[in-house]
Amino acid sequence: MALKARALYEFNSENPGEISVKENEVVTLYSEQDIEGWLEGSNSKGERGLFPASYVEILKNDTASTFNNNSTSGSRYANIPTGVTSPGLTALSPPAPAQQQPIYQASQGSDEDWDDDWDDSSTVADEPGVVGVNYQRDFDGNGPSTYRLSTSMSKGSNVQQAKSSATVSRNLNRFSTFVKSGGEAFVLGEAAGFVKDGDKICVVTGQYGPEWQENPYPFACTIDDPTKQTKFKGMKSYIAYKLTPTHTQTQVNRRYKHFDWLYARLVEKFPVISVPHIPEKQATGRFEEDFISKRRKGLIWWMSHMTSHPVLSKCDVFQHFLTCNSTDEKSWKQGKRKAEKDEMVGANFFLTISTPSGPPLDLVEVESKIDGFKAFTKKMDDSVVQVNATTNEFARKQITGFKKEYQKVGQAFKVLGQAFELDQQAYSVGLNQAIAYTGEAYDAIGDYFAEQPRQDVDPLMDLLQLYQGHLANYPDIIHVQKGALTKVKESQKHVEEGKMDAPQADGVNERCNIISFATLAEIQHFHQVRVRDFKAQMQQYLTEQIGFFQKITGKLEEALQKYDNA
Amino acid sequence: MALKARALYEFNSENPGEISVKENEVVTLYSEQDIEGWLEGSNSKGERGLFPASYVEILKNDTASTFNNNSTSGSRYANIPTGVTSPGLTALSPPAPAQQQPIYQASQGSDEDWDDDWDDSSTVADEPGVVGVNYQRDFDGNGPSTYRLSTSMSKGSNVQQAKSSATVSRNLNRFSTFVKSGGEAFVLGEAAGFVKDGDKICVVTGQYGPEWQENPYPFACTIDDPTKQTKFKGMKSYIAYKLTPTHTQTQVNRRYKHFDWLYARLVEKFPVISVPHIPEKQATGRFEEDFISKRRKGLIWWMSHMTSHPVLSKCDVFQHFLTCNSTDEKSWKQGKRKAEKDEMVGANFFLTISTPSGPPLDLVEVESKIDGFKAFTKKMDDSVVQVNATTNEFARKQITGFKKEYQKVGQAFKVLGQAFELDQQAYSVGLNQAIAYTGEAYDAIGDYFAEQPRQDVDPLMDLLQLYQGHLANYPDIIHVQKGALTKVKESQKHVEEGKMDAPQADGVNERCNIISFATLAEIQHFHQVRVRDFKAQMQQYLTEQIGFFQKITGKLEEALQKYDNA
Repeated sequence: MALKARALYEFNSENPGEISVKENEVVTLYSEQDIEGWLEGSNSKGERGLFPASYVEILKNDTASTFNNNSTSGSRYANIPTGVTSPGLTALSPPAPAQQQPIYQASQGSDEDWDDDWDDSSTVADEPGVVGVNYQRDFDGNGPSTYRLSTSMSKGSNVQQAKSSATVSRNLNRFSTFVKSGGEAFVLGEAAGFVKDGDKICVVTGQYGPEWQENPYPFACTIDDPTKQTKFKGMKSYIAYKLTPTHTQTQVNRRYKHFDWLYARLVEKFPVISVPHIPEKQATGRFEEDFISKRRKGLIWWMSHMTSHPVLSKCDVFQHFLTCNSTDEKSWKQGKRKAEKDEMVGANFFLTISTPSGPPLDLVEVESKIDGFKAFTKKMDDSVVQVNATTNEFARKQITGFKKEYQKVGQAFKVLGQAFELDQQAYSVGLNQAIAYTGEAYDAIGDYFAEQPRQDVDPLMDLLQLYQGHLANYPDIIHVQKGALTKVKESQKHVEEGKMDAPQADGVNERCNIISFATLAEIQHFHQVRVRDFKAQMQQYLTEQIGFFQKITGKLEEALQKYDNA
Repeated sequence: MALKARALYEFNSENPGEISVKENEVVTLYSEQDIEGWLEGSNSKGERGLFPASYVEILKNDTASTFNNNSTSGSRYANIPTGVTSPGLTALSPPAPAQQQPIYQASQGSDEDWDDDWDDSSTVADEPGVVGVNYQRDFDGNGPSTYRLSTSMSKGSNVQQAKSSATVSRNLNRFSTFVKSGGEAFVLGEAAGFVKDGDKICVVTGQYGPEWQENPYPFACTIDDPTKQTKFKGMKSYIAYKLTPTHTQTQVNRRYKHFDWLYARLVEKFPVISVPHIPEKQATGRFEEDFISKRRKGLIWWMSHMTSHPVLSKCDVFQHFLTCNSTDEKSWKQGKRKAEKDEMVGANFFLTISTPSGPPLDLVEVESKIDGFKAFTKKMDDSVVQVNATTNEFARKQITGFKKEYQKVGQAFKVLGQAFELDQQAYSVGLNQAIAYTGEAYDAIGDYFAEQPRQDVDPLMDLLQLYQGHLANYPDIIHVQKGALTKVKESQKHVEEGKMDAPQADGVNERCNIISFATLAEIQHFHQVRVRDFKAQMQQYLTEQIGFFQKITGKLEEALQKYDNA
């Protein structure tokens, strides 16, 4: 009788060699032995291929097992949500179009990440859905090993190659950010590549700890006048944004899809860098002025974060995006292909990082800093959500209720002025006109209230949206850092147990140290731009509000003057 | 078989000699002949006395008449409202205590007065409920005739005396303002009294037409520090207001009941003068600070209208009220008795009026002016109601919704500041404090919004309330003037028909001319104080609003400055 398994969760194949299974579907297994967390078998449609071992339970002795089974394996996954979106995947895909709080939705969805408990005594990186199976494997930190993004590791042709023994446990959940980002591969010494001098990314020790070395040639980039353009003889329309970087002073046209492509490259390349989210996709109304204006503002914020980031601003793909002549189709495609073939992404990115000379970071201190930052981002996310919701409601009230109240007062004064005009006494004329003007002034003030949110609340909300994107990125970044720390602890334990030799453990330690430097530098950068951005935005908000109330005061003063000769 | 009548409307007896009847009640009549519009009979309870002829229909031939009868008499009264409150009576009693628009309610109730149609061809003053029965009567404009307020005319003892013949029709509805005010009696030449020089009230011709001669010794009067006082060894408490007139510089204490008494005297005395309403009575909470403060403000407005009125400000009863030493019980009572016995009230008031030398006023022009003013007051009343309702709602919104919205924004900023404080970076401290201060600033602005209506809306509403009182007075004043004009037309007709001799008609004409002068002077005064009051109040309102928005601006500027060193 063939070996069977029942799917505990739905799994949708995403790569060649994988097969989809539905929840409760019974699949036939070719072997009980999983390969890197994957089992091979055939589903009820007769398709043959791989699926995650953790998604099924093997049916033994023909007994129908309950879904609340007590096996260790079963209980481990009790927390896996149906559907396989991890926070990492959420971050990879641009936020779904939503009216007000697209990011808020996303970060709410990842509350589990905020609350999960890092168990220091665990020998596995305890992300939800990580199987603690140890594979024995020749661990060779020196020899070059082929590294591909984790999604490509599951491809049939690589499965055998990947099957090897290891002295340090591996995360078998391919959805783990630690795995996906390349963090694990790097810590395990699997990353290898030739780092050109120009690719080197330096972490230096600054006043407040590790930080990215400043870009010695800082630049900015304006985004102007989006214009509607057509191609295929008018069959297709699109909006082109005019980008002018200060370091080239040469304008290039870029479409939203170019931003989208660039964003995907950056996310793929930089595991512990918070790539600012681009404004959300929108299916309808793409050519409406309001939408274009809003998207442009979002892209300006995005660009500001890109150009002010010491690492992102310098990277080749971004420079290609900023400088390649839009009309030179050939060189654009060349650069595009080059970026897509970039070897120094994910795990290999860490190879490019050069840490300050001196002793490695203290692990306990790093962990404490990371935990502090985790708490900070949680609190900041909550407060950003609150400020966003409150100012959004505040704007709505100003546009509707406040406007209405002031205009009702204006209308009442106008009616009073009209009543007074019935009296034809000469000495009443001035008063009648003044009251009529007062009515108009309140009418205008109602309009001021309705127009104001566009001047102050909207820009504030744009900033908040950008930061909600960053805050949604950080759980993944923290995961990578935490995963690396866990690996260090594991390797130390293995050394104590005689399962690993000290140099190997030192290698893990050194590589974890690189990740720690990079993560702390990124956190430092985040704090610096946060303080810069929020200071500037709060100043702008208050300046706008002051101008608004002064405008009202001015209007009322005009009205008051009308009474002087009344 | 006894003569019967059926009551068309409910009538409640208010004076000795009258009996009450219910709608549809059948009463027994002693005579079909009414006496000055009153019938004598007994009701179903067996009570014997007088009731208005116009309230019943006489049942003849035992046929039950329908209520929609076609008799001339019946159709005349189709418009009489159930219940017998005329606008005049409403004006006599202080407005009922109500939350927001006591006067609005009252003036709404008298809409019929606004809309009623003056039929110039009618030989009767066409107020609702006026019977057009002509009594033949010796008309002697020279002989002194006893005049009492119309309410006392219905007393049994006076009925026979009042029954006389006249060549000019009389209003038989004792609720007619024209009758009640003494206007009719004066026009008919029934008023008589000795006018002392000091009692003389001059109408002069000013720039804009007839106006009251200015008080040559103008004064004002402050109302300060109401204090709670007790009498009967603390058994009774009351609030005493400290009044200090500028012309005596001597403080007197007056209670609300003194104002109330004075108000009744003034209304009784001055038929075509709009006596400002005193603040409404209130049964509960009389000692609460808010109420006392509000009443004091109302009394200040009232006092301002009293002292600035050329006639009211000078009259004896008001002077007694302002100057009599509060502790001199004896002289207070003397003055009180004197005022209550004043002969120069109602009809006799008109005797005290001295008109400018020169030709009499043109009747058509007077009527046109009165009609214009009637339209004006109607429109002004509507607009005052609207401003009152709107600003009241505006105040409510500021105290609730506006405050809440600003404080929610403040709270959101505070929470953001708290989140930022989790980050212990030195360079973030200034920003954190600035954001926290911004939160407090918005909190304070919320309070500003809640506190503001007391500074601007409340005083505006106090003024509106006072004017609603005036506007409720004018229908009565207009009725008196219109009634007099009607008498003139009637007398002219009688002369044409040979029923009246020319000198008699001239007397009617002259006396009507006096009423016209007085009414136009009062209207002129109303317009002048209206323009003065509304100008001042609008200026105060706008000045307060400007100060309010400047205070907000100042608070926001303070908040903005906190970012300078952040």
